[in-house]
Amino acid sequence: MTDPSEVLSLAKRRGFLWPAYDIYGGLAGLYDYGPMGAEMKKNIEGYWRQLYVRQEGFLEINCPMLAPKEVFEASGHLKEFTDLVVQCTKCKLSFRADHLAEGLHHHPSTLKREELWGLLVEHEVSCPECKGEITEPASFNLMFKTAIGAGAAGRDGYMRPETAQGMFVNFSAIFRLGREKLPVGAVQIGKSMRNEISPRQGVLRLREFNMMEAELFIHPDKKTWPRFRKIANDKLLLLPGGCDCAVEMSIGDAVEKKVIKNEALAYFIWLTWKFLTELGIDGTRLRFRQHAKTEMAHYAVDCWDAEALLGYGWVELVGVADRGCYDVSAHLTHSGADLTAFERFDEPKEMELDTVKPINSRLGPLFKGKAGKIAEALSAVSPDQLPKGCSEIQVTVDGEKVNVPADCWQVVRVRERVSGVKVVPHVIEPSYGLDRILYAVLDHAFHREGEYTRLRLRGLVAPIKLGVFPLVSKDGLDRIAEEIFEELSILGVSTQFDDAGSIGRRYARMDEIGTPYCLTVDYDTLKDGTVTLRDRDSSEQVRVNRKDLASLATRIAQNLSFEEVKRGI
Amino acid sequence: MTDPSEVLSLAKRRGFLWPAYDIYGGLAGLYDYGPMGAEMKKNIEGYWRQLYVRQEGFLEINCPMLAPKEVFEASGHLKEFTDLVVQCTKCKLSFRADHLAEGLHHHPSTLKREELWGLLVEHEVSCPECKGEITEPASFNLMFKTAIGAGAAGRDGYMRPETAQGMFVNFSAIFRLGREKLPVGAVQIGKSMRNEISPRQGVLRLREFNMMEAELFIHPDKKTWPRFRKIANDKLLLLPGGCDCAVEMSIGDAVEKKVIKNEALAYFIWLTWKFLTELGIDGTRLRFRQHAKTEMAHYAVDCWDAEALLGYGWVELVGVADRGCYDVSAHLTHSGADLTAFERFDEPKEMELDTVKPINSRLGPLFKGKAGKIAEALSAVSPDQLPKGCSEIQVTVDGEKVNVPADCWQVVRVRERVSGVKVVPHVIEPSYGLDRILYAVLDHAFHREGEYTRLRLRGLVAPIKLGVFPLVSKDGLDRIAEEIFEELSILGVSTQFDDAGSIGRRYARMDEIGTPYCLTVDYDTLKDGTVTLRDRDSSEQVRVNRKDLASLATRIAQNLSFEEVKRGI
Repeated sequence: MTDPSEVLSLAKRRGFLWPAYDIYGGLAGLYDYGPMGAEMKKNIEGYWRQLYVRQEGFLEINCPMLAPKEVFEASGHLKEFTDLVVQCTKCKLSFRADHLAEGLHHHPSTLKREELWGLLVEHEVSCPECKGEITEPASFNLMFKTAIGAGAAGRDGYMRPETAQGMFVNFSAIFRLGREKLPVGAVQIGKSMRNEISPRQGVLRLREFNMMEAELFIHPDKKTWPRFRKIANDKLLLLPGGCDCAVEMSIGDAVEKKVIKNEALAYFIWLTWKFLTELGIDGTRLRFRQHAKTEMAHYAVDCWDAEALLGYGWVELVGVADRGCYDVSAHLTHSGADLTAFERFDEPKEMELDTVKPINSRLGPLFKGKAGKIAEALSAVSPDQLPKGCSEIQVTVDGEKVNVPADCWQVVRVRERVSGVKVVPHVIEPSYGLDRILYAVLDHAFHREGEYTRLRLRGLVAPIKLGVFPLVSKDGLDRIAEEIFEELSILGVSTQFDDAGSIGRRYARMDEIGTPYCLTVDYDTLKDGTVTLRDRDSSEQVRVNRKDLASLATRIAQNLSFEEVKRGI
Repeated sequence: MTDPSEVLSLAKRRGFLWPAYDIYGGLAGLYDYGPMGAEMKKNIEGYWRQLYVRQEGFLEINCPMLAPKEVFEASGHLKEFTDLVVQCTKCKLSFRADHLAEGLHHHPSTLKREELWGLLVEHEVSCPECKGEITEPASFNLMFKTAIGAGAAGRDGYMRPETAQGMFVNFSAIFRLGREKLPVGAVQIGKSMRNEISPRQGVLRLREFNMMEAELFIHPDKKTWPRFRKIANDKLLLLPGGCDCAVEMSIGDAVEKKVIKNEALAYFIWLTWKFLTELGIDGTRLRFRQHAKTEMAHYAVDCWDAEALLGYGWVELVGVADRGCYDVSAHLTHSGADLTAFERFDEPKEMELDTVKPINSRLGPLFKGKAGKIAEALSAVSPDQLPKGCSEIQVTVDGEKVNVPADCWQVVRVRERVSGVKVVPHVIEPSYGLDRILYAVLDHAFHREGEYTRLRLRGLVAPIKLGVFPLVSKDGLDRIAEEIFEELSILGVSTQFDDAGSIGRRYARMDEIGTPYCLTVDYDTLKDGTVTLRDRDSSEQVRVNRKDLASLATRIAQNLSFEEVKRGI
């Protein structure tokens, strides 16, 4: 197993990532990406975009990180996105209650407030810093709060804790731009923020982090995916809820045996596997763990985490969940906007429909001049969206929310010829933790032989695709190497020129940042225009024609293997 | 001139960008990028990265948006990054004082607090909403503030108002990773936030916005750039400070005549011109305006804004400034970290140097046990970094700041053989407003002929490179078109398949989102494997072999013209 401190030390030394603001003493939970890390992050995002946007046809959008309170009232984050925190009565420091209970319970984070407090009291847990007495656990909201605007026009705002809400609130635009058909998918790549009480474990728990999230809006009764059959025989390591050990199972079998709830969910579990293994995550240290019923949000239909075995143990990299109709319904109810998809029938049908019928004789006296508009708004409400046995309906009229009591309307069943019906879409959400994925790729690529470190990054993620060296800095070799470096750079290839020290030391520097191939301009180059290409992992060499380097670089970025290099050139 | 409301209406309708959170009534100053906008934004970022990272060799880093207070104490933002704001005593709304003074003065934003207040009083300006009395202008800091962590361990944090500070505080890492040589450049692409009092003008003044910033750390006496000579004859429209109208001048002349202060600054003004015109900004509506002395920050050496003429008037898109040593000095002084570059001489030199000499007989009694460490820290201080006539030196010992009075040290001149000297680098900063640039490209590309809208986006920025149509959805034409669409998508080309409605309507849809070329699969395709390629701007058509489409798409993304298409195929 790789030692995280060794990976983090290499990452800092060679410019992948390092703790931010160290000249001011640092700030826990914030990291900088250096030049190698930024390049690698861009490569990961690019490949993810290739899969989700180009191949699967999801629509990419970018929403602000800052959002008004209403968004998180609707999503439930304002009330529920909390950790239980205790404070030391002496030194006043705060701690996560479940962290203090580690070792006292198998899964302290699943405990309720009272259970956790009971456990801490029973074991006489005190402040880990000063041994002072601790307070009872209290809920602490993990969203960063700020004020938008000045004075009375100011509003409370929160930094988003996930990118997902931006896609839910934009469902209507996404549906329209996706040509008004289900399924339609949206993706977003961006930062989110969580005010963690005690960030730890390098980049695994950051206060500001990068996510890649996809939201597939899908018909509740048609959770299929066109390309599913093509991949149904691929086998993954699955750890179904309640099982003790992972089993290898084809994705087709998993759906047939109802291990995974539906085909669309299974497809995106497969796509996650494909994505992670292409990046270089070792398939034998990658499993998909199903959430236990108790672990899932109450509304979730099914949820699977992609977990990789790292130096820290098993770490969640991606969550793939069928969230039912929860998200869209929540915003529909809170905003009053019609966030439904219109499912158009091939031809109009006679249907029995429940509708809300306003009782004008009651609305008039109660709402006076507004009664007409309220009646109209009531008629537009779909009874399916009403909670069972609800005693009033909230409608939005002229931007104002109005509660209409139950004696002002009734639900009646009518028979109508309709061209289609409104559907509140379900959501299947693959949510990727980019920083964790990048770290996991480093962890699985890290190899030490004695003092020699080799980062076995695949060409797809490697920050530098080719090292370019002159054998010696004379006789025009340096000039040719510089020319090659410039030609490749202008074509957009990420290369590094190095003429400092022995060839061996230059190889070592490149091996440490995971550069898959290095080319050396030598005296034969002057004669026949070929350069030496050296493979990082085997140290084997072949000669390659200079004019083939550009297309070679393109193929390196597509995970070209050295066997293919040898065959192809 | 293009009407901004027409551009914004198209942008919303076709999925470029739209005001965020509209289902909750919106939030001024926040916009979403839709699928077309996100793709276009990515194209602009990609080309900028190609120029700055690949061609000029800048190192890309990514820093957090959240920063501790210390960073902005050092940078001056905490004290100076403010707007003057008045409040209505009746309705309590806040307004920017300079906005209320518009029409009363040529440049109200340049006025001092008292002058502005005098002007508002003189003209009896009242609340624009309710005509209530307004308060005297007060300073309002434009940074979004939040609390990091909980309880006593919590710290004040601010969302960055620019990406630049992350690069300044990381100067040591950048210098080291850049092989310890000046000049060395860093870039960052990312979001920043400013709590604008009254955001307006679409995406020109946002509360959350995207920047692309470059910081070139350069030797104060060597502000040159290697590729300058190659571009010295290119002509730009320059508007030197104090002049009334722009003059066309070669960039070489501008440096020679000292219109632009130095070669490096001039090079990045040129690079900005190159960047913007390649994106499609019309060169005749693009000028570089030099800041007047009164407009520049006191420390700035020279500053030029790239301004484009849009429907809103002349709008700043990019600022290119020589900021002197201000930024690095500020963090060096505040953090105590050694943010200097070591300039190594070719061979050691005898030099007369000023050094700080601790007076141990005074330090001992005053600082007791710490005196040794303080003496050491004092010896490391470079007298150049001390303000003139300073009466004490602040040093950092064991993480604690200590002020050492003037009688405990003296500055002495010594003669020494040294291998190099420490240099506080100057900074040349090209700072690009990404949202404004994207909007400007839309503005300059927008063409209406009657009811017909054509977005003349260049291939480089166009969100969709190729539209793919079957002439009719039968006889296998649709299947071939789908195949082509899938092949191109898998190669990463951004295309759109469209088989809905007449060919004319499909062209119209593509013209409106700026797709440079559309290809149609027709009956000839079945015979000879060619498709019809239609040019957006001329509506001319040529036949292209199906197997050439992938390389064609690559060249479209490099601004291939239709003349070249016709010649090349």
